[in-house]
Amino acid sequence: MTTPNLDRLFNPKQIAMIGASSNPRKWGFIILLNILKGDYSGKVFPVNPKAESILGQKCYPRVADVPGNVDLVIITTPAKLVPPLIDECGEKEIPFGIVITSDFSETGPEGAALERDVVSRAAKYGIRLVGPNSMGIFSSQSRLHAKMPPIMPLHGNISMFSQSGNLGVQMLGWGAQEGVGFEKFVSSGNEGDLSCVDYIDYFGQDKATDVIIGYLEGIDPGMELFPVAQKVGRKKPIIVFKGGRTNAGGRAAASHTGAMAGQSRIFKSAFRQAGMLEVKTSQALLDCARAFANCPLPKGNRIGIITRGGGWGVITVDACEENGLQVPPLPDKIIQKLDEHLPRYWSRGNPIDLVATIAHDPYLDCLEVLAEWEGVDAVIALGAGRRAPRYPYSENVKGPKPVMDAIKFASEYFDRREKKPDWMLQGIGKMVKRTGKPIIVVAIGPETLHRSNLYEFQVVSYPTPERAVRVLWQMYKYRRFLDSQDEV
Amino acid sequence: MTTPNLDRLFNPKQIAMIGASSNPRKWGFIILLNILKGDYSGKVFPVNPKAESILGQKCYPRVADVPGNVDLVIITTPAKLVPPLIDECGEKEIPFGIVITSDFSETGPEGAALERDVVSRAAKYGIRLVGPNSMGIFSSQSRLHAKMPPIMPLHGNISMFSQSGNLGVQMLGWGAQEGVGFEKFVSSGNEGDLSCVDYIDYFGQDKATDVIIGYLEGIDPGMELFPVAQKVGRKKPIIVFKGGRTNAGGRAAASHTGAMAGQSRIFKSAFRQAGMLEVKTSQALLDCARAFANCPLPKGNRIGIITRGGGWGVITVDACEENGLQVPPLPDKIIQKLDEHLPRYWSRGNPIDLVATIAHDPYLDCLEVLAEWEGVDAVIALGAGRRAPRYPYSENVKGPKPVMDAIKFASEYFDRREKKPDWMLQGIGKMVKRTGKPIIVVAIGPETLHRSNLYEFQVVSYPTPERAVRVLWQMYKYRRFLDSQDEV
Repeated sequence: MTTPNLDRLFNPKQIAMIGASSNPRKWGFIILLNILKGDYSGKVFPVNPKAESILGQKCYPRVADVPGNVDLVIITTPAKLVPPLIDECGEKEIPFGIVITSDFSETGPEGAALERDVVSRAAKYGIRLVGPNSMGIFSSQSRLHAKMPPIMPLHGNISMFSQSGNLGVQMLGWGAQEGVGFEKFVSSGNEGDLSCVDYIDYFGQDKATDVIIGYLEGIDPGMELFPVAQKVGRKKPIIVFKGGRTNAGGRAAASHTGAMAGQSRIFKSAFRQAGMLEVKTSQALLDCARAFANCPLPKGNRIGIITRGGGWGVITVDACEENGLQVPPLPDKIIQKLDEHLPRYWSRGNPIDLVATIAHDPYLDCLEVLAEWEGVDAVIALGAGRRAPRYPYSENVKGPKPVMDAIKFASEYFDRREKKPDWMLQGIGKMVKRTGKPIIVVAIGPETLHRSNLYEFQVVSYPTPERAVRVLWQMYKYRRFLDSQDEV
Repeated sequence: MTTPNLDRLFNPKQIAMIGASSNPRKWGFIILLNILKGDYSGKVFPVNPKAESILGQKCYPRVADVPGNVDLVIITTPAKLVPPLIDECGEKEIPFGIVITSDFSETGPEGAALERDVVSRAAKYGIRLVGPNSMGIFSSQSRLHAKMPPIMPLHGNISMFSQSGNLGVQMLGWGAQEGVGFEKFVSSGNEGDLSCVDYIDYFGQDKATDVIIGYLEGIDPGMELFPVAQKVGRKKPIIVFKGGRTNAGGRAAASHTGAMAGQSRIFKSAFRQAGMLEVKTSQALLDCARAFANCPLPKGNRIGIITRGGGWGVITVDACEENGLQVPPLPDKIIQKLDEHLPRYWSRGNPIDLVATIAHDPYLDCLEVLAEWEGVDAVIALGAGRRAPRYPYSENVKGPKPVMDAIKFASEYFDRREKKPDWMLQGIGKMVKRTGKPIIVVAIGPETLHRSNLYEFQVVSYPTPERAVRVLWQMYKYRRFLDSQDEV
């Protein structure tokens, strides 16, 4: 099996849009607008015999009339019109098509017959198809937003396929909130032709992709998912979120994409053998993507923890232990080093509890001692970095002048802190590079905080320790897979 | 065992603060400032022989000099000074004290002896103590922010105890972001005198408290936690997050509060017998608090699901099935009702997939049919309500006029939508009241979205279906506990 070359699909120079529409409620309008406003680097040609121009773009009556070579055709017409249009695209020698149109195999036997017709005509001309029933693609390099909803993904080194369009594009939007950036995205739809196996294979050899993630409901028994994943997984991590894990979920999946979701246990074991990392929640998919895309892999499962408060340390240890990570005790030489930075009554254990020390200096000093200790492979830094951006107080307060002065002083202090570059996060970012170990920050705060931690300081952070632990556990599993010939 | 009356602790009319300080880096300053800026309804008297006034409040040399009755004393002096001060408070007949001071039993045998001395002196005078090593309390009714960090909790009907001060107060701050409001909060510290059992007992009979939540590390074997919880749990839910569940976590807890964390399995089974709901992550504690505080309990475990996209429906079904919730198929009569609102090719199952229908009308109509069907006890409404608050586009785009016009049109549409009251969420809020069933909304969006969903529309929402399912599962467990004499 040779890896399909999908370069012209994801980075086309010229696109034809059959079914482009002047009606703002039609996908043929919305997708064209998304392409145009996304500042696409190539050219897009609307095809519609009934319009002179759409959104200021000259319209062509038929795809044959589009000047020059077309790399990609996007089709949004009603389903019944699609088969003859494929012939026209074949005549024009267009190599790739995205069929947005739904009402194919997902709706029953009649739709399935129509889909087979479309796919076999495409095959005759050598056209490779995305979909049908796709929500489109995104490509960072050519700034191509050929997809339904008006979501602007962040650019990054993660590529994603999704067997659910809605779930996939919402992941892009969610990623934009949280700081998870994408290189390529494809809503694979009914996978009449190109399938998730092709996308994994292609992403595997795509230089701009470092991490592959995907939402998967079912695969045809004939597909070579697992051999392909096994080959690609040795080069870059493949993180999958499987829908239809339960019997009821499988039935729901069948009614939705027409795909047989298959037996959960078989999938689970095959994922492990192929080195695919399976996550169990939507949040975990995004969380893992962010860490794999931005952190070095830990060499083992020994975790150092530093905390500003005992309770957070305790629950982090619990989460580590419950997920197969170890929290080793500190040896004397490390305790002695830490003694220099901490008050005499510190607990001398891992987690290192800063015992309500608020200043930044001892935190960074202790973190450095911990991260450089050869006894740990990764560090979780609880409560590091910026916290409440604004000083909170009751608007009603009318106190004596000294109270109002103190509030003003504290507010100004908080405001200044918010504006200053955060040297603590800068320090952590540098420490990751120097030690080659992942240092995951945990800080309660909105998505925007975590996005800016990543984009300004290259520091990966989460709002809860449990999420940080889950991510480190997956990274450790992947590391173990790379280090051996074993399964994950 | 009689329930302790802690009214004067949580709603004192007069507070003395021994250890009040003019130094902005001391807790004796910070806590006084927090009380003053929180607009506390009573009076606070700083006690410090070395200052004339602090933060504009007249200072008293000794607690004996404070005029009138004192309901509560807050002590922030160094540990060694505390025992004689307790005698002075006893002479003044102060009924309650909060010892913020640390360096007691959490630091070793010497501190433990000091703590015993403090507690036995207090007992002699009948003073009930919070702490030592407490981060303070919060009380909504008297707007009392007698606690360390400058966090302003939202007001609500949830009361919380926490054996970790840091974790507890950060939950308050996190709740303020996400829309979880509190009635009373206590950082119980070392629990030298008053313990979590007393707080649970008191919150149980407190009319302003509807839901009790707590962070627990360990309890003394002599404590009557389980009988008390069993009594209180029949009246209102008690949701606990246990730190020190694992051996390593238990060791970390011991070094931090001095409490023996005890064996996880024993706790787990005791929690169940006492009707206490145990959550396993920090996020789940807050999530459950929000739903229990604002939703009716489901009568059973049958869940209806409505979705805008198949994939989200599938993963919600998986999460339900994996958590003991059922997703029953729709009977013909319900399918017929839904046929009126949906395109002919809809999948006729539960989840109800709106098949990319964007308009609000059919969503609310279908949701109503589903919620009123006697075959479901609760509904998860995926993708309901407001979404992206702003229309996103590349700042660089310089398209032809029609493109710029379309972008302007869409931006204005999004802006208008953001300003309008959301009648869909309004409709859901009313439907919950009318049907008496919980309808949990799932919508990807920042914490502020979920806070405003709750505060503007009384609608409980989460950013992922897995979080909604986890909450419904706990509500179902509690309902089952109430309906029987069984354990949870």
